[in-house]
Amino acid sequence: MNTCLDCLPCIFRQTLDAARRVSDDPAFHERVARQVAAWIHAADLKESPPVMAQRLHRYLKGVTGVEDPYAAAKARDNALALSLLPELRERLARSSEPFALAVRLAIAGNLIDLGPKSDLTADEVVGSIRRVEEAPFSGDVAALQRRAEEARSILYLADNAGEIVLDRLLIETLHPERVTVAVRGAPVINDATLADAQTAGLHELVKVISNGADVPGTILGECSTEFREHFDRADLVISKGQGNFETLSDAPRDICFLFKVKCPVIAARVGLTLGTQAMVWLQGERGSKA
Amino acid sequence: MNTCLDCLPCIFRQTLDAARRVSDDPAFHERVARQVAAWIHAADLKESPPVMAQRLHRYLKGVTGVEDPYAAAKARDNALALSLLPELRERLARSSEPFALAVRLAIAGNLIDLGPKSDLTADEVVGSIRRVEEAPFSGDVAALQRRAEEARSILYLADNAGEIVLDRLLIETLHPERVTVAVRGAPVINDATLADAQTAGLHELVKVISNGADVPGTILGECSTEFREHFDRADLVISKGQGNFETLSDAPRDICFLFKVKCPVIAARVGLTLGTQAMVWLQGERGSKA
Repeated sequence: MNTCLDCLPCIFRQTLDAARRVSDDPAFHERVARQVAAWIHAADLKESPPVMAQRLHRYLKGVTGVEDPYAAAKARDNALALSLLPELRERLARSSEPFALAVRLAIAGNLIDLGPKSDLTADEVVGSIRRVEEAPFSGDVAALQRRAEEARSILYLADNAGEIVLDRLLIETLHPERVTVAVRGAPVINDATLADAQTAGLHELVKVISNGADVPGTILGECSTEFREHFDRADLVISKGQGNFETLSDAPRDICFLFKVKCPVIAARVGLTLGTQAMVWLQGERGSKA
Repeated sequence: MNTCLDCLPCIFRQTLDAARRVSDDPAFHERVARQVAAWIHAADLKESPPVMAQRLHRYLKGVTGVEDPYAAAKARDNALALSLLPELRERLARSSEPFALAVRLAIAGNLIDLGPKSDLTADEVVGSIRRVEEAPFSGDVAALQRRAEEARSILYLADNAGEIVLDRLLIETLHPERVTVAVRGAPVINDATLADAQTAGLHELVKVISNGADVPGTILGECSTEFREHFDRADLVISKGQGNFETLSDAPRDICFLFKVKCPVIAARVGLTLGTQAMVWLQGERGSKA
């Protein structure tokens, strides 16, 4: 999907957050802000918002040499989510609808996204997960369950660190031998990479692949051949997070998008209120709506 | 005060709000956003945020010919505030501390500012005013009362339409024959002009002057000679709102600033939390702290 004019204030906010993570020098922050202003002045708004984020983070990496500004935040959020796993497993074991609960937990974990909100606190994350059933939910869980049961192969596109730990609970319900999990090919914002998948223990459970790209989303033309083959051939693609939605909403296949609605632009696009746990099926050339 | 990097996302948001008020054409909105991005790329951040707002609104006026994009919003907010006057007068009549309450009401009215928040609702405004004593307050009311009693001349810098109606309640306590109220010289955002002062009935009560400028704040170098004389000579200057604070915080005289803390940048600058009703005395070359 296009970059909307309402994305521009948010891109500026993300810029300042990222610049401050890699340097304490206000003159550097100003230089980065001016650079992003120049990009916006001439931006191709037909590109999705993650393209601008990729450009920003490549620039910051090039100028500062800092490979992963969000490393500490990712480690903290993985540890936080891992600490919640025992109580969440108990809750799933007691649940009369464990699949639906696992879907909601995976979506609740999508709050752990340092793109739309730089200053997310542990209390907000824990609250969102523990009170998972208080948030509004939109989607057809039975349709996902049916499609998942029928599928011989499932590609699961992870989004963020921390969140990927909760994805594990959903993946465990999907007969994991059929599941491939794809993560980002390089650090960008707090998106999950192979290291985060390993921390979440996913390598013991499923095949984990890198998508080969450094986009906080999935731009197919920038992904590896291996990823593209999985993407094209999987019977079911489950895609986590707003960044994947922004970049794959026009993709040439059907996809089940799971994300927490965290910004007004996405909320307007899918017709749901902020905070909703959203399951959105989009139908590409190949697919049919579930 | 300088424009802070954290002002930049907000400037973009204000830009889109203003552009959408003067035109329904998305291509025009995009053109304005790109123009503002170019200004930010090359901006002098030593200038205060209202300078950028002045530039934006002059540009919009020049391109569209729309003299006052906020005219309807201002009329609505004046009417809303006027409708509250009878109950507020009763409340003041019953109050054991009417001066303190009038100060708080004048500050509560400062919520009616379409700069930091484009989508302010009537319910928010009415709630903020009716529950005026629930908001945190910071400041020395007795000092203002003492200074006001001693002053032979008081210059009162109004800020926004709607708010100016509530300013009237405070001005009535100040022995109005000594008071001059200054408003903006031309429409900019929802700032009060001579017409709004007239709607508020201030012309019956005090001398009302224009400051001669189209800045959503007070840049002394752009103000009229008449305004400058009042500003230099008044025994007491009371200044309403964030825009006046941003532009006058380094002014060469003591000023009593009254405003509601509505943005994180101002909150950090004055060391108060968002939502606080703030009375801040700043001491210029001439003045002494009350």
